[in-house]
Amino acid sequence: MKTAAICTIGDEILIGQIVDTNSAHIARELNLLGIQVKHMTSIGDDRGRILAELGNCLDQNDIVIVTGGLGPTKDDITKDALRELSGSRGYKESPEQMAHIERILGARGIPLIDTNRAQALVPDACTVIPNKLGTAPCMAFYGLGARGQAALYSLPGVPFEAIGLLPDVMDDIRRHFALEAITHHTVVTFGIPESTLAKQIEAWEDALPANIHLAYLPNPTIGVRLRLTQFGGKADFTPYLKQLQAILGDAIYGEGEDTLQEVIGRKLRSAGKTLALAESCTGGHLSELITSVPGCSDYYKGSVTSYSNEVKMNVLGVRSETLSRFGAVSEPCVREMAAGVLRVLDTDYAVATSGIAGPGGGSLEKPVGTAWLAAAKKQADGSVTVATQCVRFAASRAVNIERFASHALDLLRRNL
Amino acid sequence: MKTAAICTIGDEILIGQIVDTNSAHIARELNLLGIQVKHMTSIGDDRGRILAELGNCLDQNDIVIVTGGLGPTKDDITKDALRELSGSRGYKESPEQMAHIERILGARGIPLIDTNRAQALVPDACTVIPNKLGTAPCMAFYGLGARGQAALYSLPGVPFEAIGLLPDVMDDIRRHFALEAITHHTVVTFGIPESTLAKQIEAWEDALPANIHLAYLPNPTIGVRLRLTQFGGKADFTPYLKQLQAILGDAIYGEGEDTLQEVIGRKLRSAGKTLALAESCTGGHLSELITSVPGCSDYYKGSVTSYSNEVKMNVLGVRSETLSRFGAVSEPCVREMAAGVLRVLDTDYAVATSGIAGPGGGSLEKPVGTAWLAAAKKQADGSVTVATQCVRFAASRAVNIERFASHALDLLRRNL
Repeated sequence: MKTAAICTIGDEILIGQIVDTNSAHIARELNLLGIQVKHMTSIGDDRGRILAELGNCLDQNDIVIVTGGLGPTKDDITKDALRELSGSRGYKESPEQMAHIERILGARGIPLIDTNRAQALVPDACTVIPNKLGTAPCMAFYGLGARGQAALYSLPGVPFEAIGLLPDVMDDIRRHFALEAITHHTVVTFGIPESTLAKQIEAWEDALPANIHLAYLPNPTIGVRLRLTQFGGKADFTPYLKQLQAILGDAIYGEGEDTLQEVIGRKLRSAGKTLALAESCTGGHLSELITSVPGCSDYYKGSVTSYSNEVKMNVLGVRSETLSRFGAVSEPCVREMAAGVLRVLDTDYAVATSGIAGPGGGSLEKPVGTAWLAAAKKQADGSVTVATQCVRFAASRAVNIERFASHALDLLRRNL
Repeated sequence: MKTAAICTIGDEILIGQIVDTNSAHIARELNLLGIQVKHMTSIGDDRGRILAELGNCLDQNDIVIVTGGLGPTKDDITKDALRELSGSRGYKESPEQMAHIERILGARGIPLIDTNRAQALVPDACTVIPNKLGTAPCMAFYGLGARGQAALYSLPGVPFEAIGLLPDVMDDIRRHFALEAITHHTVVTFGIPESTLAKQIEAWEDALPANIHLAYLPNPTIGVRLRLTQFGGKADFTPYLKQLQAILGDAIYGEGEDTLQEVIGRKLRSAGKTLALAESCTGGHLSELITSVPGCSDYYKGSVTSYSNEVKMNVLGVRSETLSRFGAVSEPCVREMAAGVLRVLDTDYAVATSGIAGPGGGSLEKPVGTAWLAAAKKQADGSVTVATQCVRFAASRAVNIERFASHALDLLRRNL
């Protein structure tokens, strides 16, 4: 198995101003090619550190991917370190990248100056993978490291540029190292904790053929993804997926990169149905998740965030008696919120949330982290049925809100 | 200047399943103590790698902060590596952490099993900083590394636990290393791009005394933070802050860790005023930002996300003629949305957004990335005045939404 190291360069990461999201993206892509990432590292814009760290990474791995350190102002440090590491004597211009630089600056009406022109200069030994989205190209170097067989790819640090270049970089890695074929299939589940899931599918997992590998990829908002991987040859996962479906039933809601909001959106669109939301404790986060899916206006009409009892009563029609008798965090209240927003926004489905996200509030009976969730559905005869669920978490305000929202989406998904 | 390395342990980071946000948090805190972070690194749950990497970090730095590798199932690898590194012979129980474990599991109704009990066991040489938010404590070790003077702090990987422990860890670092006094004052600005800002305050910056250092900390949703730092002695930034205020005027909206939503919340609370939102293109994100502030129910009544024209008309009272004549992304429409939600939710202030977040939609006249924003205010005589603004960005859907929302908050802030 080939191994890799990922290295980010830039003082802005070491002072904590920027969270490095590039490394996780790159790691996922390498992982999908069957390459093991052994090390991630972040260092400052310092020539000595760059040379030492990259040299070390190249000695110990087949592939080193570098991001950052290539802005127009600090270009020279990283690039000159790469020149030295690759044994290049000097620099050459990349005409392809130069064309992209001229096009990009032209579109923004920015005159071309020397610092921009310098971005098309790359060390002699470099193979350029042009960057259509920005001014700094990807530079590839081969035959490096102690064994003379390692490859290094240097990418710009801007996330959308780095991620935009990844398909080309992965293609290059696959070709350069003549990697074995690898097939994946990912099943997405929600509602069963990872440890419980592992017990439920233990016998199934043990019976998988030796050339099929299973990975658990839990995520608090997406659920647990189960990824099957087969190295070499053509994979047919169908029989194993059927067995898994029989064990897990409707805990499985999608495949690949599916999320609850995407699956819900597809189902609503294909059924020609519409959705509304009434949020209290989730405060808009549920609506944000639904609208994170492009084209959601096909089925999503909108929401009411009712952060006060007044709005619950006056806009959503929750009865004053319900609030005084059961409180806002109660099954009767979320029922009336869901049915109310379905009526007011005139939709086929509605979801409602009411809970205590914390850090303040809560009681012995309803501690911080408690929420009532509801999913309402308009029946063919015009009547409305409502499914409800009570959840309880013990995390921070932001994490509690995230979990309330994903469980509310799951409740809707199960009642579509 | 003391230096530090930050090390995260866990296979889940190396396969890209988790984005490491802890390191940035820790780096910011260290930075505020005047400690330079020279290196961040992520390695897998592998005893050999952990020993080699931590040993190396300890030899080269004064402080090493480790997160992760301490879950109930994989506790043993990291903890035993720390036992060896610290020269501990065996383990001892931390009664304080044991009490937290019993309390946390008890509250969740989970019976205490051996793997939980094992989390209170720490290497002999360890000083425990108890973790109130989770079962794994922070372990501090002193006198390590080649010079026998380095300290290592091992924190759990769960972000809210790690961040919850940071104040105690920073206090311990400050005391243990008897760090020089350091004073910061941060001014938060919004609405002026970093490069423009730098030019506007160039003369002021050049005239700062040599012992005062200025740092630019730009953030797309918060704005540009300007941090003044003085090492040693008692700092009085007052004259420089007055000069800065005179140059930047109301572009300055707060200080320290202030965000637009916090400053708005404080102003509304102290004035006894209330707020409502009407969101279209921001799809709930604005409401999420407002409700990210604990206690916001004191002034925030709620919002209507009007993702369809029907909801704009039927719930918010936008006139059909406005939509047909000017479209939903128009000044007249956001005016009516803001005034409408202010009336329907009966508040003193309201904000509205309507735009095209992309990737689809848009036209030559209103390209993707365009939004109209409005801030409405109820006057003493009951009439409503509305301020509006048109903004245009060229980023991804998620980033456009973020920028629409922060500019809408800024428009409100300027009109409070």
